Amino acid sequence: MPTKRSRRTILLEELTSAEFARLVKRRPLAILPFGAVEEHGSHLPLCTDAFQAEEVARRVATELGAILCPAIRYGECRSTRNFPGTITLTSETVRSLTFEIVSELGRNGIDKILIITGHAGSGHMAALRLGAFRAVEKMPRLKVMVLSDFDIAYDLRGKEFPVEDGHGGEIETSRMLHVRPDLVGKFRPRGTSRPPEYMVLPDPEKYIPTGIYGDTSYASAAKGGRIDDYVVKRLCELARKNFKMGR
Amino acid sequence: MPTKRSRRTILLEELTSAEFARLVKRRPLAILPFGAVEEHGSHLPLCTDAFQAEEVARRVATELGAILCPAIRYGECRSTRNFPGTITLTSETVRSLTFEIVSELGRNGIDKILIITGHAGSGHMAALRLGAFRAVEKMPRLKVMVLSDFDIAYDLRGKEFPVEDGHGGEIETSRMLHVRPDLVGKFRPRGTSRPPEYMVLPDPEKYIPTGIYGDTSYASAAKGGRIDDYVVKRLCELARKNFKMGR
Amino acid sequence: MPTKRSRRTILLEELTSAEFARLVKRRPLAILPFGAVEEHGSHLPLCTDAFQAEEVARRVATELGAILCPAIRYGECRSTRNFPGTITLTSETVRSLTFEIVSELGRNGIDKILIITGHAGSGHMAALRLGAFRAVEKMPRLKVMVLSDFDIAYDLRGKEFPVEDGHGGEIETSRMLHVRPDLVGKFRPRGTSRPPEYMVLPDPEKYIPTGIYGDTSYASAAKGGRIDDYVVKRLCELARKNFKMGR
Amino acid sequence: MPTKRSRRTILLEELTSAEFARLVKRRPLAILPFGAVEEHGSHLPLCTDAFQAEEVARRVATELGAILCPAIRYGECRSTRNFPGTITLTSETVRSLTFEIVSELGRNGIDKILIITGHAGSGHMAALRLGAFRAVEKMPRLKVMVLSDFDIAYDLRGKEFPVEDGHGGEIETSRMLHVRPDLVGKFRPRGTSRPPEYMVLPDPEKYIPTGIYGDTSYASAAKGGRIDDYVVKRLCELARKNFKMGR
Amino acid sequence: MPTKRSRRTILLEELTSAEFARLVKRRPLAILPFGAVEEHGSHLPLCTDAFQAEEVARRVATELGAILCPAIRYGECRSTRNFPGTITLTSETVRSLTFEIVSELGRNGIDKILIITGHAGSGHMAALRLGAFRAVEKMPRLKVMVLSDFDIAYDLRGKEFPVEDGHGGEIETSRMLHVRPDLVGKFRPRGTSRPPEYMVLPDPEKYIPTGIYGDTSYASAAKGGRIDDYVVKRLCELARKNFKMGR
Amino acid sequence: MPTKRSRRTILLEELTSAEFARLVKRRPLAILPFGAVEEHGSHLPLCTDAFQAEEVARRVATELGAILCPAIRYGECRSTRNFPGTITLTSETVRSLTFEIVSELGRNGIDKILIITGHAGSGHMAALRLGAFRAVEKMPRLKVMVLSDFDIAYDLRGKEFPVEDGHGGEIETSRMLHVRPDLVGKFRPRGTSRPPEYMVLPDPEKYIPTGIYGDTSYASAAKGGRIDDYVVKRLCELARKNFKMGR
Repeated sequence: MPTKRSRRTILLEELTSAEFARLVKRRPLAILPFGAVEEHGSHLPLCTDAFQAEEVARRVATELGAILCPAIRYGECRSTRNFPGTITLTSETVRSLTFEIVSELGRNGIDKILIITGHAGSGHMAALRLGAFRAVEKMPRLKVMVLSDFDIAYDLRGKEFPVEDGHGGEIETSRMLHVRPDLVGKFRPRGTSRPPEYMVLPDPEKYIPTGIYGDTSYASAAKGGRIDDYVVKRLCELARKNFKMGR
Repeated sequence: MPTKRSRRTILLEELTSAEFARLVKRRPLAILPFGAVEEHGSHLPLCTDAFQAEEVARRVATELGAILCPAIRYGECRSTRNFPGTITLTSETVRSLTFEIVSELGRNGIDKILIITGHAGSGHMAALRLGAFRAVEKMPRLKVMVLSDFDIAYDLRGKEFPVEDGHGGEIETSRMLHVRPDLVGKFRPRGTSRPPEYMVLPDPEKYIPTGIYGDTSYASAAKGGRIDDYVVKRLCELARKNFKMGR
Repeated sequence: MPTKRSRRTILLEELTSAEFARLVKRRPLAILPFGAVEEHGSHLPLCTDAFQAEEVARRVATELGAILCPAIRYGECRSTRNFPGTITLTSETVRSLTFEIVSELGRNGIDKILIITGHAGSGHMAALRLGAFRAVEKMPRLKVMVLSDFDIAYDLRGKEFPVEDGHGGEIETSRMLHVRPDLVGKFRPRGTSRPPEYMVLPDPEKYIPTGIYGDTSYASAAKGGRIDDYVVKRLCELARKNFKMGR
Repeated sequence: MPTKRSRRTILLEELTSAEFARLVKRRPLAILPFGAVEEHGSHLPLCTDAFQAEEVARRVATELGAILCPAIRYGECRSTRNFPGTITLTSETVRSLTFEIVSELGRNGIDKILIITGHAGSGHMAALRLGAFRAVEKMPRLKVMVLSDFDIAYDLRGKEFPVEDGHGGEIETSRMLHVRPDLVGKFRPRGTSRPPEYMVLPDPEKYIPTGIYGDTSYASAAKGGRIDDYVVKRLCELARKNFKMGR
Repeated sequence: MPTKRSRRTILLEELTSAEFARLVKRRPLAILPFGAVEEHGSHLPLCTDAFQAEEVARRVATELGAILCPAIRYGECRSTRNFPGTITLTSETVRSLTFEIVSELGRNGIDKILIITGHAGSGHMAALRLGAFRAVEKMPRLKVMVLSDFDIAYDLRGKEFPVEDGHGGEIETSRMLHVRPDLVGKFRPRGTSRPPEYMVLPDPEKYIPTGIYGDTSYASAAKGGRIDDYVVKRLCELARKNFKMGR
Repeated sequence: MPTKRSRRTILLEELTSAEFARLVKRRPLAILPFGAVEEHGSHLPLCTDAFQAEEVARRVATELGAILCPAIRYGECRSTRNFPGTITLTSETVRSLTFEIVSELGRNGIDKILIITGHAGSGHMAALRLGAFRAVEKMPRLKVMVLSDFDIAYDLRGKEFPVEDGHGGEIETSRMLHVRPDLVGKFRPRGTSRPPEYMVLPDPEKYIPTGIYGDTSYASAAKGGRIDDYVVKRLCELARKNFKMGR
């Protein structure tokens, strides 16, 4: 089970305007989580990406004394868009959302922003980075870090987990068993095929009949807990180093 | 205190792709809540709008057997934008978000959508309606209803509540005392001034020094409960009538 | 009959570049009227909104010594768009027009601008305000006031006129009988129904078969004259107060 | 003096929705005039372009039984933009206006549209044509003709008028003496210089100190009358031929 | 045959970053050639415009010691778009390309830019000028010259060449016989018709069955050589004068 | 030295409209190369990416009987943008260019398109894919493959070449020694540092003082030849498989 919510997590949603103004003077980090509403196989819910990213973001925020911003649970989902339940935004809207929220945080005096996205599609990531880049171009004192928790979790492929693991696979299923076990189906699917390399297709779903990549039968909450611990630890290290924050 | 979360609330975030596909066949209503990150006086938190709209949306969804979509907690906030902590989106981004989510729900077979926004600024509302309109233009079988819970709550002005009540005032404070009493400050401010009528200003905050409109000293959780009951009841009636849903 | 055109009305269209440059030094108000080409029942012409707004704008300009800019007789008309003869612009174009004309007046040294629109649809009004807001954001010394003459004329509902009056109704018909009696049809329709509340519809016209709201049988030129006198007086008061202009 | 307004001119602004619907069945031409608010030397008013185009458009509409649409008196003015009083739109807004009005006329059943612009700057003309083109691409049954009355009036350069004549010159001044003699200054300037060929400049006005091109001392109302007669005759011929309209 | 490539032509593509930085200090002219992929009759290849503009641009660059930028071989082609092989960009993309490349050259310290386009369609030219204008507006120290080599070559119509010559005609065929004789077909077509004047059409190709305008039977490489010599000489004169460059 | 240009390479630029129309009937592949104008260390020219991609594209086109389209030698370059000589486009322009050229090829009957980009920045790649995706969405019969020759060349890292190799490094220098040895500087730099991971920075160049990543002292033309042979072979295999083309 995930760590219980700490008293110390600073949630932007709960601060008054004056409390926010006082906090900003300490030059805190702000963390903005992104998710997606996207097919994740027969065993995982549509907001799988959000559940993982928000859990990790919360733990990192607590650890680093950062302000946790309300999550955006919608993203750009191209390869799964034709599966039922995928609600995709355009790249342009993801970019605008990112640009505007980052710019607004900057206008409010925040100068360190960490964007953690549970969805790691390349178009979605590019839109987040482009939005952040435009804000940084306009306000060069801003430092923004953009990554997916899967950029880190997938370090473990070829180590504790198979190389052939991806969307809705063993790593993702394990993490969900750790964070929201109530939402993981009993039947654990397996997906071995992927759309043809480098192709831009109108129907990528035809090449991924189970809607996932990997073998979920080996997934476990314990593994998920270890992955999340690793992701949180590594994210804290990266943030401390990149934002030059003390321990 | 608000009604405890019912088992029966159908959350889009928790459904698998296949569960969603099965549900859509019953032609359910989908509800999309919007909030804002916006100054709300010295006694209320930045996401006051989101807390109220999400509570009401959850109750209406439970009552009507609707699918509750993940909330968007950001909106367009023009008159409070210069107070610390207001994170405003542009009208264009609010419009695009609405257009894309409504279109995507429509593409997925949903044909009844209710957008409930806790933030009721006229530019924000216009952006929600324009986004919904563009989706309806493209898919004329879609029926979309767009309103703020305050469009209904403010029916009570001139009745149980004073006419001179608005942003962060007695109604809003009472509702927050009902939904999130832990987040309401002890000191209850009073605001009597407003920006000059019809003016488009770079600095509207100068005309609203307390950042609110109304007298919050009379606010109470009991009043908030009655308001929310009224809002939920009225929303259910309107939705049943407009979407021609049976009891 | 409307007041005859005064010699003193300063029309932008008639000024030379040098005359304009001299005038600007006195820091005058500029007035920009907006209309629409829009169905107005069987008895009123398509540019009903423009005729009223331009008449009022002319009288206010004369009274205040303001520069009257050429009117834009096109607007965004969503609820009447499917009636023959409605020529609607998009919100984006109304916004861009407003932004650019206001910015250009600002670039030319004007710092007080009054936009009077005869069409008062909420999307159209929001587009005017957004365009004006973007200009004010860029040039914070600009003061812009945006309203419809109907924002004022409708003060009289529940007083001299029934509450149930609106588009093409008694007030509007009376004003047209005053301003352009030659264009008002003999047969006076009545409209009692409106589109369902809060709905965003592809076919709002189905709910308003007469294309109007109100009972026009009581309309008269005398009432129209009194309304316009009230609107002009109130507009002058508001402009003097908001722009801090002397008597 | 210009011909007095004929009873027979069909003005879109004066039609009711039902009258418009009846008229459209006869498949009439619609005429849309464009002007500009633009410096025109020390002797001509800012809306010189609009006065000429609207006069010509009115006469052509009367002659051809066409529906005359409300004029747009704003355009894109690049070379004169830094003179006092020039209010320029962007090319994008001129294009959108044209696209939307042409599309809306098309949606309303009109299939022949003539756009006459008094302002003939190359960027402005390109924007009108691009807007019209986008509408024609979408509705290929539309036939649209886009030109400036100066495309025709300048046929007379090198004949009755000097080759070295242009913006605010002898032809334009003569036409204004014919249409609005009350607005033409007594002092008649002369302009002999032009911005360097093919250059895109931030300050084109530096190269045209009088703000005009040509010698206006020879201008006369009689010449203006002849020019306008020629322009109207030629426009009617072109429209009859291009739209295959009978006499 | 065209002049052999001179050793002295400075190609941006071949410079290192450091070489470019050194060169910029001398404040050189940069030349950006544009072409198009567009039908050019049965005897000329799709990139006819590019071959001519690039040849001329190379010679002018060599003569003036200018930096020659990589050509863009795509443009906006409206009248030929329905012939096989025409690959047209939108005006907006041509404008953005021009704006961005000109702005980037400006950001890199270049302050004199000459854009030579082989394609001379009015929409394409307007897009190039608008893009350049936006860059100049942003960086007023930039001087940009935008023209087509045909703006100059067509000086020769009514002199050595017939007035009735245009797209793919005698002048263009002669120039191609000079520059790329291997690509000119043996059969020389003749085109005498043009789309109706001033019309914006969905099918302009119907009015130009041979896809060209002019009589190509008199074309020759010798004429082409003379035309190109004239164009290069005139371009160098204009550039020297407009950019105030010494001999 | 690279293979000499084969007679059999079909260049779009050299085809007449009619030849193109005939060719399309055989349903050929079209290849569109992209480059960039971008700093590449002290030893390589600004269009290094273009030289490599165009060479590879030409060889693949020849091998597969594909139509080779004119290259676009500009791209989106974010990390090197502040080095002298980098001319970057926005992501939006790269996307529009790709969308429009792919759509236009599709409109012309082409249904198989291969985009090979020499520049492989993640924002640039995302823009190419997004542009291609939008075209495929509109014309689902289109099959588009988007990749960089470096997606393949970097397969050799950790094999014949070090893992620590990248922009302007040993692989790229070797390939340039093979394709354009005349443009490779004698001094071979070495770059060991990279911008901090995951950061979106206004000044990434500060972290890469030599402007490259890798040790170029081991680069050789022979290695470059082997890399290009591998890239060409692999690209042909991928294209044959993905487009289901026979040998």
